[in-house]
Amino acid sequence: MLNGGNLLDVPYAQKMAESQKEISISDFFAKNRQILGFDNPSKAMLVSVKEAVDNSLDACEEAGILPVITVKVQKADDRDKFKVTVRDNGPGIVKHQIPNVFGRLLYGSRFHAIRQSRGQQGIGISSVVLYSQLTTGKTTSVISKIGEDYPCIRMEIQINTKTNRPQIISSEVILWDQSHGTEFSCEIEGRYQKNKKQTVYEYLRSTAIVNPHVDIHFEDPDGEKFHFQKVVDKMPESAKESKPHPHGTELGVLKNMLQYTEAKKITSFLTNEFTRISPRGAHDIIEKAGIKDSVIPKKMTLENIQTMYSVLQDMKFMSPPTDCLSPIGDRLIRKGLRKEIDSKFAYTVTREPKVFRGTPFQVEAGIVYGGELPPGETVQILRFANRVPLLYQQGGCVMTHAIERINWRPYGLEQRGGKGIPAGPAVILVHIASTNVPFTSESKEAVADVDEIIDECTRALMDCGRRIRSHINKKKKLKKVSEKYTLIKEILPEIASKSSGILDRPQLPLDEVITKIMNVHVIDSGIHFHEVGEGDEKQLLTEVTIRVQNYTQKEKKFKMAVKVPNTLIQGVYPEKYIIKQGVIEWDVGPLLPARSLHLGFTLVGLDKDEYEEVEVYYSKLTGEVIGADPM
Amino acid sequence: MLNGGNLLDVPYAQKMAESQKEISISDFFAKNRQILGFDNPSKAMLVSVKEAVDNSLDACEEAGILPVITVKVQKADDRDKFKVTVRDNGPGIVKHQIPNVFGRLLYGSRFHAIRQSRGQQGIGISSVVLYSQLTTGKTTSVISKIGEDYPCIRMEIQINTKTNRPQIISSEVILWDQSHGTEFSCEIEGRYQKNKKQTVYEYLRSTAIVNPHVDIHFEDPDGEKFHFQKVVDKMPESAKESKPHPHGTELGVLKNMLQYTEAKKITSFLTNEFTRISPRGAHDIIEKAGIKDSVIPKKMTLENIQTMYSVLQDMKFMSPPTDCLSPIGDRLIRKGLRKEIDSKFAYTVTREPKVFRGTPFQVEAGIVYGGELPPGETVQILRFANRVPLLYQQGGCVMTHAIERINWRPYGLEQRGGKGIPAGPAVILVHIASTNVPFTSESKEAVADVDEIIDECTRALMDCGRRIRSHINKKKKLKKVSEKYTLIKEILPEIASKSSGILDRPQLPLDEVITKIMNVHVIDSGIHFHEVGEGDEKQLLTEVTIRVQNYTQKEKKFKMAVKVPNTLIQGVYPEKYIIKQGVIEWDVGPLLPARSLHLGFTLVGLDKDEYEEVEVYYSKLTGEVIGADPM
Repeated sequence: MLNGGNLLDVPYAQKMAESQKEISISDFFAKNRQILGFDNPSKAMLVSVKEAVDNSLDACEEAGILPVITVKVQKADDRDKFKVTVRDNGPGIVKHQIPNVFGRLLYGSRFHAIRQSRGQQGIGISSVVLYSQLTTGKTTSVISKIGEDYPCIRMEIQINTKTNRPQIISSEVILWDQSHGTEFSCEIEGRYQKNKKQTVYEYLRSTAIVNPHVDIHFEDPDGEKFHFQKVVDKMPESAKESKPHPHGTELGVLKNMLQYTEAKKITSFLTNEFTRISPRGAHDIIEKAGIKDSVIPKKMTLENIQTMYSVLQDMKFMSPPTDCLSPIGDRLIRKGLRKEIDSKFAYTVTREPKVFRGTPFQVEAGIVYGGELPPGETVQILRFANRVPLLYQQGGCVMTHAIERINWRPYGLEQRGGKGIPAGPAVILVHIASTNVPFTSESKEAVADVDEIIDECTRALMDCGRRIRSHINKKKKLKKVSEKYTLIKEILPEIASKSSGILDRPQLPLDEVITKIMNVHVIDSGIHFHEVGEGDEKQLLTEVTIRVQNYTQKEKKFKMAVKVPNTLIQGVYPEKYIIKQGVIEWDVGPLLPARSLHLGFTLVGLDKDEYEEVEVYYSKLTGEVIGADPM
Repeated sequence: MLNGGNLLDVPYAQKMAESQKEISISDFFAKNRQILGFDNPSKAMLVSVKEAVDNSLDACEEAGILPVITVKVQKADDRDKFKVTVRDNGPGIVKHQIPNVFGRLLYGSRFHAIRQSRGQQGIGISSVVLYSQLTTGKTTSVISKIGEDYPCIRMEIQINTKTNRPQIISSEVILWDQSHGTEFSCEIEGRYQKNKKQTVYEYLRSTAIVNPHVDIHFEDPDGEKFHFQKVVDKMPESAKESKPHPHGTELGVLKNMLQYTEAKKITSFLTNEFTRISPRGAHDIIEKAGIKDSVIPKKMTLENIQTMYSVLQDMKFMSPPTDCLSPIGDRLIRKGLRKEIDSKFAYTVTREPKVFRGTPFQVEAGIVYGGELPPGETVQILRFANRVPLLYQQGGCVMTHAIERINWRPYGLEQRGGKGIPAGPAVILVHIASTNVPFTSESKEAVADVDEIIDECTRALMDCGRRIRSHINKKKKLKKVSEKYTLIKEILPEIASKSSGILDRPQLPLDEVITKIMNVHVIDSGIHFHEVGEGDEKQLLTEVTIRVQNYTQKEKKFKMAVKVPNTLIQGVYPEKYIIKQGVIEWDVGPLLPARSLHLGFTLVGLDKDEYEEVEVYYSKLTGEVIGADPM
């Protein structure tokens, strides 16, 4: 069986043992830098800026500061080398932590916290320092000031890759024009691409759109300056810290938690270290598991742990709190989509938060359809995770996989064999918010195929799909009816007048004939905007009109309803209406055959993009109805 | 600027500092297990088997042992739990290294070696141990015996995730029925899928195909047994260990190497630590860089290092040695492709080795076309890295990206907008061999978009594409000509006979008319197999025939040539030929108009799939030629 080896003299295993040794995490990533996103110079450029900006945003938001970020990319003296500088107005970093935060992989504050944040791994920014020193041999400079009365520190840092520990090359106190904040600056091998997708500009722009409270200044290597201004003065609902949820906390994790808990009793362990376990629930659990509360958590047997684990799995708990998640929301999704195309039809879905392996997450999706987009090309996909745009690895991402596995053909998009990325004039946006986004690698470019996540994405997207279908169908139907109507309205009178001329008889009234041929109710709607007032008093009025045409032979009495956003509503007509729970409902009629009726109202104080499509519903209307859905 | 914070009292940075701390690599991967490939239960099952088998294969090959691997997947008592056992006949592992190899992430023998191997990261097998204990709370069992006269050790191991160090739960000496080898056995949460893609079965089958020296026994959870028999008794050319290549060794890496070298002089540093730098070359380098050889490497200034780095970049060196790479080769690629579809046409390309960042790599590609494949679906893609089949993350892989960015339409495949995965009756295979495959994550499912690699893949694939085109064109042309010919051959005589009957004249000879209409040379070929001899003497004869038809009006003298594989050639006819450099070349003619001529030869000792398409070339033949290419 042995083949040329000399196993009988000295076992080969003993030779191998000499080379079996520990690998430093820094060495590992130095050799496998593509795992961190540094595959090629263009990507390296984007990643370097992104990690620094994400860090700045996280720090500002945690400290409750509206972020003002300045990003500068400059050409360095060496060929292919660039200097990247990112400055923020955040809380700064205390002196003794500066070397650790920037000069050590796997070091950070957000890894152990269950809260939605951009950085979660403790790898990002130190990986930029590592890449910088590998490709340029230079040190990284960090400036930090933690408050008005504290000195401003400037440090030059490197990573010792053999030990994964920081080396402080220099440290000094300097004067600075900010009262607090951090400035990160390094030189990297990179490539700067203007006017392209997947660039620094694109990343900053998309970030600004879904983070409207953020102010970003950007200067590119040509000295061209951009300002992405903040549009709100309010922080997003701050994502609170949470604890693990009992569902999905795995056996091994539970075992570990028991090992390291400071709780003295099982019940206090359960109530303190998990979310959604009440003292009463905890007692239920140990009773069902047949464990005494006096057992010390650290000393539980594997058997007892397994029993308790099974009980936890089978019991019902409230879903994890959702205040640790911060979705983008309908309005900003629309805005994100609109920057790609200008289309009238946009639909968004924000799903309820769900859980995978004890981790809460929430999926949002949006779609725009039509507009100027070329119909024959595959749809454009915009991906976001915790409000960070994902620009690479589209093909390896659960959001893309969810899109690919849906059959979009019933929804009016083209798709070969009913799978793969569909084609058509549409842009699809997906956002995943989570306290621990399961990225496929440390480069945080794509989200992994976790069953629960792909399911949620699929549901959100299919909901969008159904809306596209009904939008397309409505448009098609209205077009068909209006063609038929035009035809009838034009041709019938002509025939009538000619035949009456030939027969020398008076022309018959045609309305009845037309309604007989059509036999349908047509409902259409319009939105008009008016500005009123001056200066600060200026307001936008959104005027909505609805027309109902009765092309049937019967007199009709029915109900109409329209969904309205939460704002001031004025001048509703006709008068028989009620407003409740965001819906205006009318009692309509009697509406005579071949007659039409107008309804309307005015919304006060909305932005132009906040009300875009009138959703009309009806009830008690028999026969075919076009342009509205049954209540 | 501050928003509700109390920065002026206690700087927020000081609060943050408390939570800034080190993250254990085991904790990191416990939280981010999807990075290791454990996204969902089906994948977890595959990854667990794969890491163990890859380890076994690497160990056997390094020790020069033909691998015999036994894989068993059994249903465990708990729901969703399986026991995975992988046994090999490799060199075993010495006792004191067993806990380290299996119980520590980032520990291994192949990370620092520049050699093609399956495992390179020191993460794979210990990540399975980690996943096992997280999902089942159980320990992993390892049995190892390193030689006839050594005891067989059995250990139960766990990982302490807080410290990333192994915990030995038990260790004992047992009796074993093998003289050397390793058995790995653990319990995991997983899902076993029968008759599906992306499964253990699929992985083992593909592995066996591209590693024909490997013998694999597999028993699935239903007790069904499979045996993938080895088909050769010879190890593949063993991949030798190499040193870094000066091109692409980056500044920071060079600086690090200088820091840790044991060389006392720069020249000895250069010649000892790099491949392809001769003593003379080393002297050239320091002369050009203006550095004295007496400078101690450890003490070189950054400036000197930068100068030397520039000199290294600008100098020419031989490409890195290729004996550290082990391509799959034409024949096994065909075999891999054929298992997917049975088609006559297969074409493969093995590119010359290239370098990225000082790392040699080699790309191979193959394509089969036609056969039973449904024409309307997207092509199937088979990806391999260092002879390991990649079953997940197709969309995130450089091999897929290379396929997507090629415009396949000129090559006869359908493709929307000339980009994306093409559709048509084809299967495409790509293999990347390298001493350091740049995977996108630790799960080793996809290769990153390194510029040099995407270029090589693109070249290999376009070469395949051109061959498809010429194959399709040849088939189309031959079909057209043969239709035309059939038409003429059938209709002309009928017309002639009818008209001669009507006119009462004798029928004219038609050959001349036909050649006038056709005005073309048609060359076709055939391959036939015959078995001769009995038992051990049995041999396969591959008989090749070529027919040249002259459908022109002129007598022709010309040359024909056929490429032949390196084997015994018999019975070449007609007699005016020479054989040189794998080509048979004939002097043909004179061949009269409307006549045909036969050439042929017999190949002895080939396998049935080693000669599949006759490549025919001609020269000195004027006018249109169908079925052969100009020399």
